[in-house]
Amino acid sequence: MTLSDKLLKQIEFIKEIDKIKYVQRKTKLFNSDRPENDAEHSWHLALMAIVLSEYANEPVDLLKVVKMVLIHDIVEIDAGDTFIYDTEKNHSNTKAERLAAQRIFGILPKKQGEELIAIWEEFEAGQTPEAQFARAMDRLEPLLQNSSNNGGTWNEPGVNYKQVYAKKSVIKDGSTVLWEYAEKLIDAGVVLGILKKD
Amino acid sequence: MTLSDKLLKQIEFIKEIDKIKYVQRKTKLFNSDRPENDAEHSWHLALMAIVLSEYANEPVDLLKVVKMVLIHDIVEIDAGDTFIYDTEKNHSNTKAERLAAQRIFGILPKKQGEELIAIWEEFEAGQTPEAQFARAMDRLEPLLQNSSNNGGTWNEPGVNYKQVYAKKSVIKDGSTVLWEYAEKLIDAGVVLGILKKD
Repeated sequence: MTLSDKLLKQIEFIKEIDKIKYVQRKTKLFNSDRPENDAEHSWHLALMAIVLSEYANEPVDLLKVVKMVLIHDIVEIDAGDTFIYDTEKNHSNTKAERLAAQRIFGILPKKQGEELIAIWEEFEAGQTPEAQFARAMDRLEPLLQNSSNNGGTWNEPGVNYKQVYAKKSVIKDGSTVLWEYAEKLIDAGVVLGILKKD
Repeated sequence: MTLSDKLLKQIEFIKEIDKIKYVQRKTKLFNSDRPENDAEHSWHLALMAIVLSEYANEPVDLLKVVKMVLIHDIVEIDAGDTFIYDTEKNHSNTKAERLAAQRIFGILPKKQGEELIAIWEEFEAGQTPEAQFARAMDRLEPLLQNSSNNGGTWNEPGVNYKQVYAKKSVIKDGSTVLWEYAEKLIDAGVVLGILKKD
């Protein structure tokens, strides 16, 4: 059997996405100073989705949620990570990210690449129950990390309660139960003095 | 609403498994000298399973395969990583690994913990189509990495063609198509002089 052109494209994609392991996030591992990379982050979100899916506001297709969180940061191989509290840069679905999606998922056989781009676009749009729950995971993980790290990235200049509250309230769209827990963590951050009141 | 004991157990588990990011494998990233950690490895296997599932010998429940590869190395938080060509240590489902599974998945609410232990045991046993395909991913990734790294861990003392062939032939149980490709990579390793003939 001749190795099909299709399989070779898939293998090429598998090699290309290895680069996500070099994309460093601002957020640090739990109880740690070591920055997390996008592969580790994505792995953790997938496990969170598996463990916490019962709290989704609406029943979700868990496989789709898991696919979303596993691929959501692949575009950062080209576009880089943007700090969520950066006020100067756009945060989602920028032109650079759309180009990255076309290039990287475009390595795959056409239909498969289009399917993954559609899942990534659905995540970015945040309108379906799956996207809302996936986005809740993406906001909850760094909240747990910062709580464990004496504030972590909350210590960056210009980050305060109001901003954190606003960014994290996206969790509510995915899960009111997890949002109630998240709210308590944010409030506790202020009480503990690891999150500036204003 | 009082935060349920159940949710707090789940959050505790999510924090505990962060430690997998410190478990270093022998295998290096693609075209790199940097060792891969278990979180990165597990993320990559999940993506491989999603992209390559069409090649499974039998139709598979993809969500189950993805769960398997995402959790298969969590036991190494306690039990450590064992080099696949280590001839002195046992490789799978040792007493230390079973104890680790009980402790770590045991942090979860009882039913959920038991479900994940069952999935891990199924992976280890390697008898179902899902476990066989998941195990194929686990063997294929380092083969791709070593091929890209002038042999990588194939350069370790005592590793030769026969051993690599034997360890990798597990891929065939999950996918004959991927095994044909894997065989070519192994043969090419010998031709290129990056895998010792004997």
